[in-house]
Amino acid sequence: MRAVAMLDHKLHLRDIPQPVPGPGEVLVKTLACGICGSDLHALKHTEKMIESSRRAGGAFVMDPRRDVVMGHEFCAEIVDYGPGTPKRLAPGSRVCAMPILVKPTGVVTVGYSNDEPGGYAEYMKLMEPLLLPVPQSLSTEHAALTEPMAVGLHAVKKAQLTADDVPLVIGCGPVGLAVIAALKLEGSCPIVAADFSPRRRELALALGADEVVDPAKNSPYDTWRGLAAWRDPSKAPPLPPWMPGPPLRPAVIFECVGVPGVIDAILQNAPAAARIVVVGVCMERDYIEPMMGISKELNLQFVLGYTPEEFAATLGHIARGEMKVESLITGRVGLDGVAGAFESLASPEHHAKIVVEPARK
Amino acid sequence: MRAVAMLDHKLHLRDIPQPVPGPGEVLVKTLACGICGSDLHALKHTEKMIESSRRAGGAFVMDPRRDVVMGHEFCAEIVDYGPGTPKRLAPGSRVCAMPILVKPTGVVTVGYSNDEPGGYAEYMKLMEPLLLPVPQSLSTEHAALTEPMAVGLHAVKKAQLTADDVPLVIGCGPVGLAVIAALKLEGSCPIVAADFSPRRRELALALGADEVVDPAKNSPYDTWRGLAAWRDPSKAPPLPPWMPGPPLRPAVIFECVGVPGVIDAILQNAPAAARIVVVGVCMERDYIEPMMGISKELNLQFVLGYTPEEFAATLGHIARGEMKVESLITGRVGLDGVAGAFESLASPEHHAKIVVEPARK
Repeated sequence: MRAVAMLDHKLHLRDIPQPVPGPGEVLVKTLACGICGSDLHALKHTEKMIESSRRAGGAFVMDPRRDVVMGHEFCAEIVDYGPGTPKRLAPGSRVCAMPILVKPTGVVTVGYSNDEPGGYAEYMKLMEPLLLPVPQSLSTEHAALTEPMAVGLHAVKKAQLTADDVPLVIGCGPVGLAVIAALKLEGSCPIVAADFSPRRRELALALGADEVVDPAKNSPYDTWRGLAAWRDPSKAPPLPPWMPGPPLRPAVIFECVGVPGVIDAILQNAPAAARIVVVGVCMERDYIEPMMGISKELNLQFVLGYTPEEFAATLGHIARGEMKVESLITGRVGLDGVAGAFESLASPEHHAKIVVEPARK
Repeated sequence: MRAVAMLDHKLHLRDIPQPVPGPGEVLVKTLACGICGSDLHALKHTEKMIESSRRAGGAFVMDPRRDVVMGHEFCAEIVDYGPGTPKRLAPGSRVCAMPILVKPTGVVTVGYSNDEPGGYAEYMKLMEPLLLPVPQSLSTEHAALTEPMAVGLHAVKKAQLTADDVPLVIGCGPVGLAVIAALKLEGSCPIVAADFSPRRRELALALGADEVVDPAKNSPYDTWRGLAAWRDPSKAPPLPPWMPGPPLRPAVIFECVGVPGVIDAILQNAPAAARIVVVGVCMERDYIEPMMGISKELNLQFVLGYTPEEFAATLGHIARGEMKVESLITGRVGLDGVAGAFESLASPEHHAKIVVEPARK
C-alpha cells in the first residue's frame, strides 16, 4: 500500500505491506487524517521527542532509525476483521477511534510506532472495542476532527470550571481552537483568546471566543481584567485589606502554544490565584520563576489526551453541530502532498488543519 | 534600642530609635523571634529577592542600600498602644501576630521593610486587630513558632487532602517539618518524608512522619510506592488497560526545599496524576521539562503564607500540644549572636530553628 513515512527528519512516499489484523483488531481504509502539530514536532525533533517521552513513561516509543508512518487524527472505513472479533459494525462503515492498539506487550500509539502505520497511509489496523460509528449526516473530514477536538474537551473538563470562572486562551492554533470550542460548549462566558495571527483570531471567533486579542497590540491579561468584573458584585468574596482594586472573577488560563517561555510568561502575568491549564506540548526544557507562582498562589495543571468517554462525547458534539468545526479545515492533500502540507503548516496565516486523504490523487 | 540590621549582605549590631506606634498600632517588646530560611536568603541575595518580588507584586519592598531589621516569627509583649486603639489586651500580655502592618499606602511586611523593624530588635510595632493572646501555659519560644508552623498548615489546607491521599514530603528543614506536623494533625497516614540529613530525618519522625528516607540511599518515590497500596483494594478505581501495575493511592508531594532543580526532579519522579504542592521558596530562575508534567497529568500548586484564620488556628494547635513543636528549637541567641546563628543554620546537622531573644545577654 502507499504510505508516507518519516525517516531522518524527512517524509518519504513508500510502498509498504498492507497491515494484517490480529485478534481483536480490524483493518480499516483511511478516509481522512488531520496533520497534528505534534507530527510537525516529531519530524523536526524525532530523537529528542523519543528520549523525553521515554523518561516520562510516555507514548512515543519508536526507533528513529526505522520508518514511522504518522497520523493519529482519522476517520476510516472498515475493510476486514481479524480473528475472534465480534464484528459489531458492517464492513464499509465509517468509524473513528482513539489511536491506540492494546497488545499483550503494552499499548502502541497508532501514528507513533515503527510497526503500526498511522493515517498517512491507505490502510491501518485499529482495535474493534474502540471503534465508534460515524453518524451518516457527519462528513468524513469533520469526523476526523474528533481526536484534536477531544484534546480541547479534556483540557476544559480537567479545569473543572464554574460559571464564575473567566477563561483566557493563550494561542489559537488547533489546540487553542479546540479548547475554545469546548469552553463554548460548557457555557463559559466571556471567552477571551489571544494570538498574533489575524487569521487565527478570526477562527477563534468562529469557534466561540467572545473577545480576541492581538498580543502585539494589547496585553491579553489587561483585556481579561477588563472583562472579569463580577456581574453581580455581591457575589464577590470579601477582599483582604492588603489586596488592592476591585475583586475579579477567577481566571482559568489555557496554555495552548507549547514553546519554551510561554508557561513563565503566563506565571508572570496571571492574576492572583489563577489556574493555568497546560495543553500546549512543549517538548523542550523550559524555564520558570517559581517566585511568580508562589507570590500569586498559582496552580498549574498539565493535561494530556482524553478519556474514552470524552473521545466518544466529542464525536457526538461534532455530529450534532455543538462544536462548530466547519472553519477549521483549511486544506486537503493526497499522500504526495503531505510533505508540502507539513511545510505550509509552519505559517499560521495560511492554515489551521490540513486533512490528508490517502485516496486523493 | 538595640537591633540587628542587614546592609551590604552583612548583619550589623545597631542602636536605632525605638518605634512610635501610630493609630491602630501597638508597641511591643520582642521576647523571641525565630530565624527563617528566607532571612538567610535575603541576606545573601538581597537585590535579586527584591527585584523578583517586585515583578511578582510581592511582599519584599525594600531599598537594599538602607538598613533592614529582619525577623517575622515572633512572640512579643505589649508595651504601649498608639492613639485610637481599643486596647483589648493589657500591657504586659504576651501576643503573636501576622507580621504585617496595613498602612494607608499599602501593606508593609514586618521584618522586610526599611522603616518597620522586625523581631531582631528590642521593640516592634504591630497592628492591634491582628494581635492574638498567647495562652499562659504556652512557652514564649513555642508561641514564636506559630508563624512557621502556620506556613505548613496553609500548605496542607491548600492540598485539600482526602483520607485516600498518601503524602510525600521532600525536604525536612523547618518548612518540611511544619508540613509534617500539619499532615499529622489532618490525620494523613502514612506520612513519608525525605532528607539527606540524619538529624532532620529524626526531627521528621518527632513531628509525625511515619517513614523517613535518605535519598542518598533509597528513592523516596520507591519508598512512597511501597507504602501507597490501597488498604481496601476494592476502593481502588478501575485501571485502564494500558496502565501497568497495581493501582496506588493518590500522591500529594510537598516540595519543601526551594532550590533550583527540585521541582523538576519531582516532576520526573512523581507517579501519574500526583498533586505537587510547592512550599519551598526558590527565588531563582528554575527549569522544568513540561513533558514530564504532561505525560503524567501532574498538578503544581504554589502556596504562600497563610490566612489570618490559619495563623490563629496554628497558635491554638501548638498551645494544645496538637502540633508537637518541642524538638524544633535547637538554639537560642541574643542580638549579638544573630550573625553567628545565620552561619550555623547553613548546616542541617546542627540546627532546625534558632530563636533570637533580644533581651538575652
